[in-house]
Amino acid sequence: MRKIEHIGIAVNSLETSNLLFEKLFGNPPYKQEEVSSEGVKTSFFMNGANKIELLEATNPESPIAKFIEKKGEGIHHIAFDVEDIFSEIERLKNEGFLVLNEIPKKGADNKLVAFLHPKGTNGVLIELCQEIQ
Amino acid sequence: MRKIEHIGIAVNSLETSNLLFEKLFGNPPYKQEEVSSEGVKTSFFMNGANKIELLEATNPESPIAKFIEKKGEGIHHIAFDVEDIFSEIERLKNEGFLVLNEIPKKGADNKLVAFLHPKGTNGVLIELCQEIQ
Repeated sequence: MRKIEHIGIAVNSLETSNLLFEKLFGNPPYKQEEVSSEGVKTSFFMNGANKIELLEATNPESPIAKFIEKKGEGIHHIAFDVEDIFSEIERLKNEGFLVLNEIPKKGADNKLVAFLHPKGTNGVLIELCQEIQ
Repeated sequence: MRKIEHIGIAVNSLETSNLLFEKLFGNPPYKQEEVSSEGVKTSFFMNGANKIELLEATNPESPIAKFIEKKGEGIHHIAFDVEDIFSEIERLKNEGFLVLNEIPKKGADNKLVAFLHPKGTNGVLIELCQEIQ
Protein backbone atom coordinates (compact mmCIF):
# COMPACT_ATOMS: atom_id res chain seq x y z
CA MET A 1 0.00 0.00 0.00
CA ARG A 2 2.59 2.53 -1.15
CA LYS A 3 0.19 5.24 -2.32
CA ILE A 4 -3.27 5.96 -3.68
CA GLU A 5 -2.88 5.06 -7.35
CA HIS A 6 -6.31 6.35 -8.34
CA ILE A 7 -9.87 7.00 -7.24
CA GLY A 8 -12.58 5.44 -9.42
CA ILE A 9 -15.79 7.40 -9.98
CA ALA A 10 -18.89 5.79 -11.55
CA VAL A 11 -20.61 8.07 -14.07
CA ASN A 12 -23.55 7.79 -16.44
CA SER A 13 -21.78 9.41 -19.34
CA LEU A 14 -18.05 9.77 -19.90
CA GLU A 15 -18.73 12.44 -22.50
CA THR A 16 -20.59 14.66 -20.01
CA SER A 17 -18.31 13.92 -17.06
CA ASN A 18 -15.08 14.42 -19.00
CA LEU A 19 -16.16 18.02 -19.57
CA LEU A 20 -17.16 18.43 -15.92
CA PHE A 21 -13.86 17.12 -14.53
CA GLU A 22 -11.92 19.08 -17.13
CA LYS A 23 -13.52 22.23 -15.68
CA LEU A 24 -12.73 21.05 -12.15
CA PHE A 25 -9.05 20.25 -12.74
CA GLY A 26 -8.36 22.70 -15.55
CA ASN A 27 -7.02 19.85 -17.72
CA PRO A 28 -8.62 17.29 -20.06
CA PRO A 29 -8.29 13.51 -19.51
CA TYR A 30 -4.88 12.28 -20.65
CA LYS A 31 -6.14 8.84 -21.65
CA GLN A 32 -9.32 6.93 -22.49
CA GLU A 33 -9.54 3.15 -22.52
CA GLU A 34 -12.19 0.44 -22.80
CA VAL A 35 -11.90 -2.70 -20.64
CA SER A 36 -14.32 -5.10 -22.37
CA SER A 37 -13.91 -7.86 -19.78
CA GLU A 38 -15.23 -5.47 -17.08
CA GLY A 39 -17.87 -3.84 -19.27
CA VAL A 40 -16.45 -0.33 -18.81
CA LYS A 41 -15.12 2.63 -20.72
CA THR A 42 -12.70 4.72 -18.65
CA SER A 43 -10.96 8.07 -18.79
CA PHE A 44 -8.04 9.21 -16.65
CA PHE A 45 -7.16 12.61 -15.20
CA MET A 46 -3.85 13.37 -13.51
CA ASN A 47 -3.94 15.22 -10.18
CA GLY A 48 -0.61 15.59 -8.41
CA ALA A 49 0.75 12.09 -7.69
CA ASN A 50 -2.69 10.50 -8.17
CA LYS A 51 -5.15 9.73 -10.93
CA ILE A 52 -8.90 10.08 -11.12
CA GLU A 53 -10.54 7.34 -13.20
CA LEU A 54 -14.06 7.93 -14.53
CA LEU A 55 -15.97 4.74 -15.34
CA GLU A 56 -18.99 4.37 -17.63
CA ALA A 57 -20.75 1.01 -18.04
CA THR A 58 -20.86 -0.43 -21.58
CA ASN A 59 -23.59 -2.96 -20.79
CA PRO A 60 -26.31 -3.47 -18.15
CA GLU A 61 -24.40 -6.38 -16.51
CA SER A 62 -21.33 -4.23 -15.86
CA PRO A 63 -20.45 -3.78 -12.15
CA ILE A 64 -20.61 -0.02 -12.81
CA ALA A 65 -24.19 -0.23 -14.16
CA LYS A 66 -25.22 -2.18 -11.06
CA PHE A 67 -23.44 0.25 -8.72
CA ILE A 68 -25.18 3.27 -10.29
CA GLU A 69 -28.55 1.48 -10.22
CA LYS A 70 -28.15 0.90 -6.47
CA LYS A 71 -26.31 4.02 -5.28
CA GLY A 72 -26.31 6.56 -8.10
CA GLU A 73 -23.24 8.19 -9.59
CA GLY A 74 -20.34 8.72 -7.23
CA ILE A 75 -17.07 7.37 -5.84
CA HIS A 76 -16.82 3.68 -6.68
CA HIS A 77 -13.41 2.58 -5.35
CA ILE A 78 -9.98 3.60 -4.08
CA ALA A 79 -7.02 1.88 -5.69
CA PHE A 80 -3.73 1.51 -3.84
CA ASP A 81 -0.45 0.91 -5.62
CA VAL A 82 1.37 -2.16 -4.28
CA GLU A 83 4.85 -3.45 -5.04
CA ASP A 84 3.94 -7.16 -5.08
CA ILE A 85 0.22 -7.85 -5.44
CA PHE A 86 0.59 -11.58 -4.70
CA SER A 87 2.29 -11.09 -1.33
CA GLU A 88 -0.09 -8.22 -0.45
CA ILE A 89 -3.10 -10.49 -1.14
CA GLU A 90 -1.56 -13.10 1.18
CA ARG A 91 -0.83 -10.53 3.89
CA LEU A 92 -4.37 -9.10 3.80
CA LYS A 93 -6.00 -12.54 3.78
CA ASN A 94 -3.96 -13.40 6.88
CA GLU A 95 -5.16 -10.13 8.49
CA GLY A 96 -8.75 -11.30 7.96
CA PHE A 97 -9.72 -9.21 4.91
CA LEU A 98 -11.96 -10.83 2.29
CA VAL A 99 -10.07 -10.73 -1.00
CA LEU A 100 -12.44 -10.98 -3.97
CA ASN A 101 -9.74 -12.00 -6.47
CA GLU A 102 -7.21 -14.35 -4.97
CA ILE A 103 -5.64 -14.49 -8.40
CA PRO A 104 -5.24 -10.92 -9.66
CA LYS A 105 -6.78 -10.04 -13.01
CA LYS A 106 -5.85 -7.64 -15.80
CA GLY A 107 -7.41 -4.19 -15.24
CA ALA A 108 -7.26 -0.86 -17.02
CA ASP A 109 -4.04 1.14 -17.42
CA ASN A 110 -1.72 -1.90 -17.73
CA LYS A 111 -2.29 -3.13 -14.17
CA LEU A 112 -2.80 -6.40 -12.33
CA VAL A 113 -5.69 -5.78 -9.93
CA ALA A 114 -7.53 -7.43 -7.03
CA PHE A 115 -10.40 -6.13 -4.90
CA LEU A 116 -11.21 -6.38 -1.18
CA HIS A 117 -14.85 -6.90 -0.24
CA PRO A 118 -16.31 -3.61 1.12
CA LYS A 119 -18.07 -5.49 3.91
CA GLY A 120 -14.69 -5.91 5.58
CA THR A 121 -13.43 -2.38 4.93
CA ASN A 122 -16.11 -0.03 6.30
CA GLY A 123 -18.07 0.00 3.07
CA VAL A 124 -15.08 1.11 0.99
CA LEU A 125 -14.33 -0.92 -2.15
CA ILE A 126 -10.54 -1.17 -2.18
CA GLU A 127 -8.50 -2.16 -5.22
CA LEU A 128 -4.90 -3.30 -5.06
CA CYS A 129 -2.99 -2.63 -8.24
CA GLN A 130 0.45 -3.37 -9.54
CA GLU A 131 1.92 -2.07 -12.78
CA ILE A 132 2.61 -4.89 -15.28
CA GLN A 133 6.30 -4.74 -16.18
CA MET B 1 -6.42 21.56 -7.27
CA ARG B 2 -2.78 20.67 -6.80
CA LYS B 3 -3.25 17.20 -5.34
CA ILE B 4 -5.59 14.96 -3.37
CA GLU B 5 -4.98 16.11 0.20
CA HIS B 6 -7.08 13.39 1.77
CA ILE B 7 -10.02 11.02 1.35
CA GLY B 8 -12.66 11.20 4.09
CA ILE B 9 -14.34 7.95 5.17
CA ALA B 10 -17.46 7.92 7.40
CA VAL B 11 -17.31 5.22 10.09
CA ASN B 12 -19.51 4.17 12.99
CA SER B 13 -16.63 3.75 15.42
CA LEU B 14 -13.17 5.29 15.21
CA GLU B 15 -11.94 2.77 17.75
CA THR B 16 -12.93 -0.20 15.55
CA SER B 17 -11.94 1.41 12.27
CA ASN B 18 -8.57 2.63 13.51
CA LEU B 19 -7.62 -1.00 14.10
CA LEU B 20 -8.98 -2.03 10.71
CA PHE B 21 -7.09 0.63 8.77
CA GLU B 22 -3.96 0.00 10.81
CA LYS B 23 -4.09 -3.61 9.54
CA LEU B 24 -4.67 -2.37 6.01
CA PHE B 25 -1.82 0.14 5.92
CA GLY B 26 0.52 -1.49 8.41
CA ASN B 27 0.70 1.75 10.42
CA PRO B 28 -1.45 3.32 13.16
CA PRO B 29 -3.12 6.75 12.72
CA TYR B 30 -0.58 9.53 13.23
CA LYS B 31 -3.13 11.98 14.64
CA GLN B 32 -6.61 12.16 16.19
CA GLU B 33 -8.61 15.34 16.44
CA GLU B 34 -12.14 16.43 17.37
CA VAL B 35 -13.85 19.19 15.36
CA SER B 36 -16.73 20.22 17.63
CA SER B 37 -18.22 22.70 15.14
CA GLU B 38 -18.73 19.82 12.66
CA GLY B 39 -19.76 17.22 15.24
CA VAL B 40 -16.94 14.83 14.34
CA LYS B 41 -13.98 12.97 15.78
CA THR B 42 -11.32 12.23 13.19
CA SER B 43 -8.18 10.17 12.82
CA PHE B 44 -5.56 10.48 10.10
CA PHE B 45 -3.43 7.87 8.33
CA MET B 46 -0.59 8.73 5.98
CA ASN B 47 -0.39 6.89 2.67
CA GLY B 48 2.29 8.08 0.26
CA ALA B 49 1.60 11.74 -0.53
CA ASN B 50 -2.01 11.51 0.70
CA LYS B 51 -3.94 11.13 3.91
CA ILE B 52 -6.95 9.02 4.80
CA GLU B 53 -9.28 10.71 7.31
CA LEU B 54 -11.72 8.56 9.27
CA LEU B 55 -14.75 10.45 10.59
CA GLU B 56 -17.05 9.44 13.45
CA ALA B 57 -20.10 11.53 14.36
CA THR B 58 -20.19 12.92 17.92
CA ASN B 59 -23.91 13.76 17.80
CA PRO B 60 -26.98 12.74 15.74
CA GLU B 61 -27.09 16.12 13.95
CA SER B 62 -23.56 15.71 12.60
CA PRO B 63 -23.33 15.54 8.78
CA ILE B 64 -21.50 12.23 9.26
CA ALA B 65 -24.38 10.75 11.30
CA LYS B 66 -26.81 11.79 8.55
CA PHE B 67 -24.57 10.41 5.81
CA ILE B 68 -24.28 7.00 7.52
CA GLU B 69 -28.03 6.93 8.18
CA LYS B 70 -28.70 7.44 4.48
CA LYS B 71 -25.87 5.53 2.80
CA GLY B 72 -24.07 3.47 5.42
CA GLU B 73 -20.37 3.63 6.21
CA GLY B 74 -18.10 4.47 3.28
CA ILE B 75 -16.26 7.16 1.37
CA HIS B 76 -17.67 10.55 2.33
CA HIS B 77 -15.55 13.09 0.42
CA ILE B 78 -12.39 13.78 -1.54
CA ALA B 79 -10.38 16.82 -0.46
CA PHE B 80 -8.13 18.63 -2.89
CA ASP B 81 -5.27 20.83 -1.77
CA VAL B 82 -5.47 24.33 -3.28
CA GLU B 83 -2.99 27.19 -3.16
CA ASP B 84 -5.55 29.99 -2.75
CA ILE B 85 -8.99 28.80 -1.64
CA PHE B 86 -10.64 32.21 -2.23
CA SER B 87 -9.59 32.42 -5.89
CA GLU B 88 -10.39 28.72 -6.42
CA ILE B 89 -13.92 29.27 -5.06
CA GLU B 90 -14.32 32.16 -7.50
CA ARG B 91 -12.98 30.14 -10.42
CA LEU B 92 -15.28 27.18 -9.71
CA LYS B 93 -18.36 29.40 -9.21
CA ASN B 94 -17.65 30.95 -12.60
CA GLU B 95 -17.39 27.45 -14.10
CA GLY B 96 -20.92 26.76 -12.81
CA PHE B 97 -20.13 24.63 -9.74
CA LEU B 98 -22.33 25.09 -6.67
CA VAL B 99 -20.02 26.09 -3.81
CA LEU B 100 -21.57 25.31 -0.42
CA ASN B 101 -19.29 27.64 1.55
CA GLU B 102 -18.58 30.83 -0.30
CA ILE B 103 -16.63 31.90 2.76
CA PRO B 104 -14.30 29.05 3.72
CA LYS B 105 -14.53 27.69 7.28
CA LYS B 106 -12.02 26.21 9.69
CA GLY B 107 -11.81 22.41 9.30
CA ALA B 108 -9.69 19.64 10.83
CA ASP B 109 -5.90 19.51 10.49
CA ASN B 110 -5.36 23.30 10.48
CA LYS B 111 -7.14 23.91 7.19
CA LEU B 112 -9.51 26.41 5.63
CA VAL B 113 -12.14 24.35 3.83
CA ALA B 114 -15.06 24.75 1.43
CA PHE B 115 -17.31 22.12 -0.16
CA LEU B 116 -18.84 21.74 -3.63
CA HIS B 117 -22.38 20.39 -3.82
CA PRO B 118 -22.29 16.75 -5.04
CA LYS B 119 -25.26 17.39 -7.34
CA GLY B 120 -22.89 19.33 -9.60
CA THR B 121 -19.99 16.87 -9.39
CA ASN B 122 -21.40 13.45 -10.32
CA GLY B 123 -22.43 12.63 -6.78
CA VAL B 124 -18.93 13.23 -5.38
CA LEU B 125 -18.67 15.53 -2.36
CA ILE B 126 -15.54 17.58 -3.04
CA GLU B 127 -13.70 19.60 -0.40
CA LEU B 128 -11.22 22.32 -1.22
CA CYS B 129 -8.64 22.83 1.50
CA GLN B 130 -5.81 25.22 2.12
CA GLU B 131 -3.29 24.96 4.94
CA ILE B 132 -3.59 27.89 7.38
CA GLN B 133 -0.19 29.58 7.53
